[in-house]
Order: sequence, then C-alpha cells, then structure tokens
Amino acid sequence: MTFQVAVIPGDGIGPELYEGSKRIIAKLIEKYNLDINLIKVEAGDTALNKYGEALPKQTLSVIEKADMILKGPVGESAMDVVVKLRQMYDMYANIRPAKSLPNVQSKYSNVDLLIVRENTEDLYKGFEFVLSSGVAIAIKVTTEFASKRIVNVALNYALMRRHKVTCVHKANVMRITDGLFASVCREVLKGKVNFDEMYVDAAAANLVRDPTRFDVIVTSNVYGDILSDEASQIAGSLGLAPSANIGDRKSMFEPVHGAAFDIAGKGIANPTAFLLSVSMMLSRMYDVSKENKYILASKSLEDAIIETYKSGNKLTEDVGGNAKLKDMVDEIYKYI
Amino acid sequence: MTFQVAVIPGDGIGPELYEGSKRIIAKLIEKYNLDINLIKVEAGDTALNKYGEALPKQTLSVIEKADMILKGPVGESAMDVVVKLRQMYDMYANIRPAKSLPNVQSKYSNVDLLIVRENTEDLYKGFEFVLSSGVAIAIKVTTEFASKRIVNVALNYALMRRHKVTCVHKANVMRITDGLFASVCREVLKGKVNFDEMYVDAAAANLVRDPTRFDVIVTSNVYGDILSDEASQIAGSLGLAPSANIGDRKSMFEPVHGAAFDIAGKGIANPTAFLLSVSMMLSRMYDVSKENKYILASKSLEDAIIETYKSGNKLTEDVGGNAKLKDMVDEIYKYI
Ligand SMILES: CC(C)[C@H](C(=O)O)[C@@H](O)C(=O)O
Ligand SMILES: CC(C)[C@H](C(=O)O)[C@@H](O)C(=O)O
Repeated sequence: MTFQVAVIPGDGIGPELYEGSKRIIAKLIEKYNLDINLIKVEAGDTALNKYGEALPKQTLSVIEKADMILKGPVGESAMDVVVKLRQMYDMYANIRPAKSLPNVQSKYSNVDLLIVRENTEDLYKGFEFVLSSGVAIAIKVTTEFASKRIVNVALNYALMRRHKVTCVHKANVMRITDGLFASVCREVLKGKVNFDEMYVDAAAANLVRDPTRFDVIVTSNVYGDILSDEASQIAGSLGLAPSANIGDRKSMFEPVHGAAFDIAGKGIANPTAFLLSVSMMLSRMYDVSKENKYILASKSLEDAIIETYKSGNKLTEDVGGNAKLKDMVDEIYKYI
Repeated sequence: MTFQVAVIPGDGIGPELYEGSKRIIAKLIEKYNLDINLIKVEAGDTALNKYGEALPKQTLSVIEKADMILKGPVGESAMDVVVKLRQMYDMYANIRPAKSLPNVQSKYSNVDLLIVRENTEDLYKGFEFVLSSGVAIAIKVTTEFASKRIVNVALNYALMRRHKVTCVHKANVMRITDGLFASVCREVLKGKVNFDEMYVDAAAANLVRDPTRFDVIVTSNVYGDILSDEASQIAGSLGLAPSANIGDRKSMFEPVHGAAFDIAGKGIANPTAFLLSVSMMLSRMYDVSKENKYILASKSLEDAIIETYKSGNKLTEDVGGNAKLKDMVDEIYKYI
C-alpha cells in the first residue's frame, strides 16, 4: 500500500517548517524505499481568510481519502482545525512524549515520560449553552467506552517502556465522571503494570518536583492538555515537543507549539517538533503496515535529530545556537 | 468585636500542627492585644469515623456562629469538608500566594505570584449524572456574577502588588463558558492594570519557563486548583503553601498540603504552611476590622517565619534541616 498523507503546512512558521523539512522527508522516502505520497492542503487562519473556512471543503475531501495528516502549527483558528479533525475522524489517542534532548539548557535532565491524553470527549465535546443572560454551562462527558480505549493505549505503551502507568484524575471532586475514568484505570491496569493514581493538582506539582518518577501518564482531555504543555516545558521546551493523534482509520501528527507569528518568515524557526512529529508518523506507519522500513526510517530521523543536538553546533537561537532553520535541517539531513 | 475562630485541626499531621502552633498564636494575641477566641471543632476522616459525618452537626453549629475558620489538612474526606464549606458559606475567593522562602532548595528563585481562584462554581458545583450505563456527565457552570466578583478581587490585589493581572482560561475551546470569563476579565481589568490573557495550557508551561513573569493570576476553579499546586511547588514546595478562602461573611484559612499520614505523630511536620495561613487570617481580620493591630500581628508572624528560614538552623527535614516541629515553632516564637 501507499500511504496518502495530507500535509497542512499551517500558519506563521508552519509553511517554512514544511518547506525546510521536505528534503529530509524525501531522503527518508528514497533511502528506505517508503511508499508515501504527500499532498499539500490548506487549513488554518490563512485558509479562513482566503475561503471563509479554516477547514475548506477541498481540504476535507483530500483528508477524507488520506491515511495520515501531517499538520504544522495553526493560528487562532486552531480549534476549528485540530479539535474538529480529531473528533470528525475519531482520532482518540493524543500521544505526547516529553523527553530531554542533549545540549538543551533545562533545569531538569533525563526526563522521559509519555502523556496519553483522551482526545474525543470531556469538555472538548463543545456542548456549551447560555442558560440565561450571564449564566453559561458546558458539559463534560466521560464514557466507559472512551476511557477503556485510551487506558488500553496507555497500557500498550507502558509495556514497551518502563511498565508504569499513572492514572491522573480528580475523582475526589468529580466523583461520577472522573470516578468512572479512575475505575476503568483500575480495572484495566491493576496487576498488568506498576499502576498508581494521582489527583491532577498533585500531578501538576509532582511533574515539577520530580518528572523522572513518571513513565506513562494516562488522563482525560482537559487535564492532558494542561499537563502535556507543562511536561514538555519541563523536558526542555514546548517548542521541541511533537504529538500524535491516533485513530483506527486515520492519524494526525503535529508539533505542540503554535504558529509563532513573531518569528514567521525569518528562517529561524526550530524544526525539531515538526520533524519529531514526522518520526511519530513513520512509526505509526509501521504499526499499520508492519513493514520494518517504516520503523527504521522513524528511528533514523529521531537519531539524526538527537545527533544534531549532541554535536550542538547547528542549533537554532531558541535552543542557544545561532544556526538558521536551513542549517539545522542540513545537519539533520547529514545524519540520516 | 471579638473574632470567633472555629479551628479544625483535621487529620494526619493536622492536630500536631495546631497543638504546636498554639503558643505562637497565644503570643500574638497577647503581644498585639488581639480579640480572638479560638474554638476547636472536629471535621475530616477522624470525625467521619467517630460520628459518621465528615462535618458533624455540632461542628457546623460552631462554624455557623464563627467569623473565621482555621483549618488543618483533612484526609480522604477533604471534598466533603472543604468544598462543602466553601460553597455553604459562599467563600468565593481562593487566594494562593506562591513565594520563594530563603534557604529553601529550589530550581527557581524570586518567585512571588498570587493565584486568585474562583471558589464556588465551574465543575466544583458537583452537578454530575450517569445518563445511562457507562455514560457520565458533569456540568461546568460559569456566571457573569461570580466571574466579575473574582476578577475584582484580583484587581484589588494587583493594585496592592505589581499592578499586573494575567487572566487564565481556555476560551479557544470553551468559547461560551471560558469566553464569558475572558470577556469579564477584559471589561473589568483593561486600562486599570497591566493585563494579559493566557490559555491554561500555555500558563502551565510558562510557570515552568519563567514564573517571575507573573504577578496576579486570576482563573476559574479547576484551572486554579491545578495551577496553584504547580506554582507552589515551583516556589519551593507545596508543603509550604498557605491559602485563604474569602467570603463576605466568613473566611477559611488552610495549608495547601494534605494530611501526610506517613509522618503523622512523629513531631517532624513543617508548620510553615499552617502558620502562614494564620498570618493570612490575621490580615483578613485587619481588612474586616480596619484595626492596625491585626495587620501588625500578621506581618510579625510572616517576618518571624522568614527570619527562621534566613537563619536556617531550625528547619525541619523536608526543607533540608534536622529540627523537629517543636524546635522550629520555638524559633519562630523567638522572632515574634
Ligand atoms: C489549539 C488547541 C485547541 C489545542 C487543544 O487544546 O487541544 C492545543 O492546545 C493542543 O493541545 O493541541
Ligand atoms: C481536597 C480538594 C477537594 C481541594 C480542591 O480540589 O479544591 C484541594 O485540592 C484544594 O486545592 O484545596
């Protein structure tokens, strides 16, 4: 099979990240003989201005036929692109690694944890109403089905990692919704991995106190949104963090960082998060196809990024270097 | 007037914290001629076991007549004590300072921020339902009234501090509820202080990146719960953080930390958070009575705690010393 990949370059620094990274993707395709077809589509603020829709019909029709989506950062219309796509294609597992990189100045070292965030329900359902003037409500939805599904994803990751899962919730207050999530965690995880539970406020503090105590964290949508940004900053910088949105039929890969309009067009953006997202996509292609070449390509890209950080002389400004986006991409290219 | 204070020593290390701190409170009352009457009451896990209720009737009848509540940590029944009291007496403003202390090992220095957390609504309302087997919902409530009230509290603190307020929400996703909160922030704060807005995930990352960029953070109940634990850990330790729950008729003061059953009864608990909560109570008594002696007593206690950290030789184990609770209390006592 050939993987059809819809590429959304996005807004701000998004287009230069994709343009800059293309030769790396091309090298991987050639070297590993990958069956990947990239189709560029428009979505985000620029698309909204041009077509009146952040996710135009022509984009959706390409995505509909694609196996994967590779997405750059999107500006203010992010919700209408990313949350909509996650729900539309039931991409239920948001996978967010937080891992220290060599030579990145940080108060913490040896961070290596994975946040598995439920990606389809909770307050992200978008069920919100004005009951009467000045009184608004939103509905948080928690189902046993979605909880089981996400906890099983966490279990599988843990079994490939350090066999530890921390289930994060606030069941002392949200006894019914978070209580359901917590009881599913116990049911699925107990006896299978080293399992513990933590209230979300304590988890936010413990990430600061000692991030190395965590292996896999599984949690619901809102808590996962907050904790994953915190964790990636603890690992070094939000600007370096990749993510995957995994569904049974379609998956989407995107950097966690935003469109960074302030540095757009200057050629100084850091390609790490975007390229690590490409690596996560290749790894997912392996999971789907079971063809070794994809996991080899994924590993090769990740290693090339790590080598570039180790050598340390072609890093962009945000990580203390003075290289341009292009120089850093060239260096990573060399290591592949 | 004489302030009637209901004291809930609580569970775990709570009773020894209160017993240990009593002589300090007595010294302040004497030295500053304060009109305070302390009445000890039972609430929490121990009360639950004894009376079948975490908040027994006799406790509530004392609290009903009290002006203030001084509360130690409570175990698993915390929700039924603390959230219930907050709502019952409409103690709408949860005030959580995060401030570095001298000689406390921390990756961060000069942290001095204040989280103003809405304390009565959001998912804490407790409106939760099982819709059908395996499907649970909870209702997040946001009102203009409560939002205005809390944002005005934040404004008042900011005007006494560094004139900066960051309004934290997630209005890009929760457009109606968080959107209402955000619009109230703009309406109340713009032009009056240095005002900015931040999504809660970005705030969680920015606290890690540079906590000194914040002065006052105002936010809703759930985000405030999470961010305040994170911030107090960043300032040094969750174990040192005090808090106030302010209402128009009644207020409650409590350490942020839990009952720490593992070290209970050993006489090694750190009294800082409990005593800083007493200092916040004295400051509130000044706000209510406008009698200078209360703010002088509040300041004197806070300064004595800071002096004890500066001298550094009577600190408990959790902050790197080898003093007992009693030694540390004696040292603070000396400085008053
Ligand atoms: C842009 C926003 C809607 C999104 C989210 O909240 O999920 C982002 O913060 C993320 O975490 O991917
Ligand atoms: C004990 C718990 C219900 C409480 C809360 O969530 O408000 C606590 O975490 C706090 O922040 O005071």
